[in-house]
Parts: sequence; structure tokens; C-alpha cells
Amino acid sequence: MDSNTHFKVALIGTGTIGLSFAAFHLSHLSPASHLTIYDTRPDIEQYINATLPKFYGEHLSLSPSRIHIAKTLQEAVTDAHIIQESGPENLTVKRALWAEVERHAPKNALLWSSTSGIPASQQAQDMQDKTRLLVVHPYNPPHIMPLLELVPSPATHQDVVKRTQEFWHQRGRVPILIQKEITGFVANRLAFALLRESIHLVHSGVVSVSDLDKIVESSMGPRWAVAGPFKSYHAGGGPGGLEGFFTNIGQTVQGCWDDAGHVNVGEGWEEKVFKDAREVYGMVDTAERDRITRRLLDVLEEERGKKEVGLGTQHTLEPTPGT
Amino acid sequence: MDSNTHFKVALIGTGTIGLSFAAFHLSHLSPASHLTIYDTRPDIEQYINATLPKFYGEHLSLSPSRIHIAKTLQEAVTDAHIIQESGPENLTVKRALWAEVERHAPKNALLWSSTSGIPASQQAQDMQDKTRLLVVHPYNPPHIMPLLELVPSPATHQDVVKRTQEFWHQRGRVPILIQKEITGFVANRLAFALLRESIHLVHSGVVSVSDLDKIVESSMGPRWAVAGPFKSYHAGGGPGGLEGFFTNIGQTVQGCWDDAGHVNVGEGWEEKVFKDAREVYGMVDTAERDRITRRLLDVLEEERGKKEVGLGTQHTLEPTPGT
Repeated sequence: MDSNTHFKVALIGTGTIGLSFAAFHLSHLSPASHLTIYDTRPDIEQYINATLPKFYGEHLSLSPSRIHIAKTLQEAVTDAHIIQESGPENLTVKRALWAEVERHAPKNALLWSSTSGIPASQQAQDMQDKTRLLVVHPYNPPHIMPLLELVPSPATHQDVVKRTQEFWHQRGRVPILIQKEITGFVANRLAFALLRESIHLVHSGVVSVSDLDKIVESSMGPRWAVAGPFKSYHAGGGPGGLEGFFTNIGQTVQGCWDDAGHVNVGEGWEEKVFKDAREVYGMVDTAERDRITRRLLDVLEEERGKKEVGLGTQHTLEPTPGT
Repeated sequence: MDSNTHFKVALIGTGTIGLSFAAFHLSHLSPASHLTIYDTRPDIEQYINATLPKFYGEHLSLSPSRIHIAKTLQEAVTDAHIIQESGPENLTVKRALWAEVERHAPKNALLWSSTSGIPASQQAQDMQDKTRLLVVHPYNPPHIMPLLELVPSPATHQDVVKRTQEFWHQRGRVPILIQKEITGFVANRLAFALLRESIHLVHSGVVSVSDLDKIVESSMGPRWAVAGPFKSYHAGGGPGGLEGFFTNIGQTVQGCWDDAGHVNVGEGWEEKVFKDAREVYGMVDTAERDRITRRLLDVLEEERGKKEVGLGTQHTLEPTPGT
């Protein structure tokens, strides 16, 4: 898959995720390539023209004229190299979709689902050839955030995973292979674990919604942008590494785990927490948030670049993005 | 407490946290102020000279000549405005320390403990006047990271909390008041909740140590540096806010919570996880990590500055640091 040759991505579904992927692909298309979009909504052309521009950032040089709106699913996928669906989170819809895509798409096209919850193995149930489909789950919004979680089914071919990884690597993104199909994949499970304790602490009157956010913004947010939790605590343990960290404060860690509050959806914390969030934040200016996030990501990318240039003299075992 | 007048901070304890606070205070001292350090170790002068310089960053202009090494605790605290202890995490030691500090310190001095686990109410048990002591818990390393968790005991006076908040605000830091004494305070509870799920996922073979770190570094790290979890999910819910978020994907969130793995210290995951961390990271270059972290924090501070300048035209209800 040479990104310098004629290359066609077909996007199916134009919700927030689909449009954000459209903005990403438009800003990374080689000159001879183009983007096809398919959605069942009747006003698709006006809708795209009205909504896509809000995804244009200062870093994107988009060519909306290079978007082709397909009138049928068959037309959209018939000569595509990549078919990426960001449709409704509905198993029946996705099963039927992939079965039809399979009838019309080229035999070696990559088939990607943006789902945050429906495993490829379930989506592929009505397909003849289950080897080409995998989940490519973004972190919202995908035209900004570097992470893609690649979650193959047991039937997905190794070569399909490899070509998918290459596609994202070549475009400066961070595709991470998840080894097993698991509820919520990895990023959301981690974030939701922290969210659960956050809700518990606000609901218990320990800290307010906005103070909790400020705590994260001024501590683990910037820390984990530079070094993830394992690397951070491995460093925190000094010469003993992560083991030294647990020797030193394992008891405190276990104390926090024992005392953690395991709230559940619908248990009565909602009213206060939702109200507090509304009062503090109103409508969040996501354009501002995304602009600042880009600035941080630019710094991190520049630092990663320095590291890669200096590889020969590095002592790190794994000179990979972001570490 | 005017930072432009003669002002004296007395630091007790010179472990990593104590030295990092020393570097912070040295870089924020007004011309007529100085820093006193007390520690029971016999080689204290050589030790300070040998170890403190590694905390000097490019942003610090330190004057080590302005450090006074006290020979006794009494000498250290007798005319101090702030007495900040970063000694061993041992209740007996801290109880005895504060009882002695109280005998020698000025009546209106602020008394701060850097403890990550021993509440002020316990530390103050042998004091006559329990109103001046509170926990001021940093996020490591405190000469870099903006967060301070202020955790008063029920006996701590409001005015003491207020003066402590002012001190840190004036120096560009983010002091957050924790409303109740609780195991691990807030930041560590949140981080350890995410760490627990991280360990579970690595131990279950879902993802490797380094891939998990890359996931966090390329998604929630940079995201939460800009907008904490509540603000992020409030934005993610669109016009419906956090409530809309839970309406849309509350079931997925609960699914992750139901499936979460509640590992404990000593349950057998340690060998693999510690070994993987050692093999991937070896000795982490914390100077490099801190340098990059500073760059991110500089961007965030600059953006916060822009926001504060533009306050009059902002629609946000709470124009506070980092939000």
C-alpha cells in the first residue's frame, strides 16, 4: 500500500466520528488519491458541506472537492482500498453491512469498524471471508488524537493487521494492537476506571467536579502525556523500578484500592454530578480544547522526532512514539 | 504574607520530595527571603551540595548560597513563616516532630506536611494548638508539577487554609482544597484506580506494558492535560453534556465497570509486570521526562494567561487555571 499511488478510502457513516475521520483522511491524501463517502441520509451533500468545515483545523489543508459522495454502497466500495465504517452501534446493522460490502469490495480491501463496543468477530458473522475485518477504534476526535486501537477477531489475518498498522504509522499516528477482544477495549476501560472513582469522590463530597478536573489537569494529565502510568511509576521507584515503587508504597496503593468506591450507573449520583458539570462548564468550547491539544501534541511529536534522530546514541530499549 | 518582604521557609527532611521543594522555593524566593533546611543526617552540607543541583532545571535560577542549614530543629523553625516537613512516613515521628515544632515556632507560622498518607488530624494529636497544621501533598516532583492537594484536619483554621492557598496561587501553582481527610487523598486514588485496571489488562494478556503506556500517552494523557475527565465527557455528550454522554454510552461505561479486574498487591501479577517494566524501560531518564513536561506546562500556562487576559469576554463560569 504505497501512499504515493492512487489510493481510495471509502467512509461509511457520517456522524461525528465519520466526519472527523473524513477530515483526517482529506489532510493526509496523496495527490492522486481521493475519499468516497456513503451515508443513507437524503441531504448528504448539503450536510457534508455544512458540517465538515468545523473539523478543519489550522493544521489541515483540506480539499473538499476531492470528496466523492457515493449514491449506493456498491458504488462506494467497488474500487476502494480501505472501507471504514462509523455507522450506528447496532450489531444487526453492522452484520448486514459487512455482508453486503463483501459482495462488492475488492478482494484485498481492508475493512475497518470504528465501533467502541461491538467486536469484529460478531460483526463478521454473516461474512464468507472473515479474515479482512478488524476494529480500528479511535480516541475522539480522530482528526486530532493520535491513538488507534486495532482489535482483530480471532479470524482476522495477520497480514491485514500488519497493513493496517503500516497505514497509520505512515501517517504519524499511534496504532496499538490489542491482543484479545475485550469489553470496551483498553483506552475506555482505563479512562472509565478513573471516571468511576472520580464520580465516587464527587458524590461523597470529597472534591467538586471542577476541582477534580483541575487536579487531573495539573498532575497526571501532563505527566501521562509524557510517560504512561507504568513508565511513571517505574521511574518513581528509583533504581528498584516498578518493584521498588510497590515495595515503598504498595501498602498505600492497596489502601486506596480497598477504599475505592464502586459506583454504578443509575445509583443516584447522577443528578448532582450532571448538574455540577452543567453549571461549571455550560457548553464546552471544543475548538479551543482541540487547538490547545494540538499544541501539546506538536511538542510531543517534535520531541519524538529528536529522539528518533538520535537513535544511535540512545540507551532506551524501545525508542517508540511518546515514551 | 507578602512575598516581597523578608520571608522565611523552613524545610524539614531532605529526601526526594524535600529537595524538590527546596528547588521550588529557591526559584521563587523574593530577594530578601531565604530558605532554611533541617535534617538529622550528619553529612547534610555535603549531601545538599551533591544532590540539590540535579533538581536545577533550565527554568530555575537558584541561589544555593541563600540556603541556611540549621543545626537544630529549634534553630530552623524559631523565626519561620512556613514550616514544611517532608520526613519519613511514620506517624510516631511526625507526632513528636509537630509537638516540638510547636514549642519553638512563631504563633502564626503555617505548618505543612508533605505526607501522602497520614492525615493532619493524626499528626496533630500531641499538639496544644491543632489549628495551624494541614497536609500540602505535592504531585512528584513538586519543583515541576503544579498540583498541591491541601488537606486540612477538622481542627485546621479556615484562615490557615486561605493563607496556604494564597501562597501557592501567588507562585503560579494549583492548590486544590480537599474537603475531607480520605485515604490517599484524591490524585493518588484516581491514578491508582487507573493503574489497577492497567495491571489487570497486562496480567490478562490483553496488552503489553509499553503498549498500555503508549495508549495513555496518545489519548487521555494529552486530553486530560487540557480538560479533566468530567469536562471531557461533558463535552463528549454534546448539547446534553455529561448527562447526554451517559444517555449515549452509559451502558458501555457500566459494561467496562462490570468487567473491571480488581487485582490486589501480592496476588501474583507482580513478577511478569515488574519484569516487563524493567526490560522495556531500564532506568528512566527523568531529567528528559521533566524537561518535556515543563514544555507542555509552559504551553498550558501560556494558554491560561490568554484566557485570563480575555476574561471580560469569556462565557465560562469559572475561569480557573487549567480548565
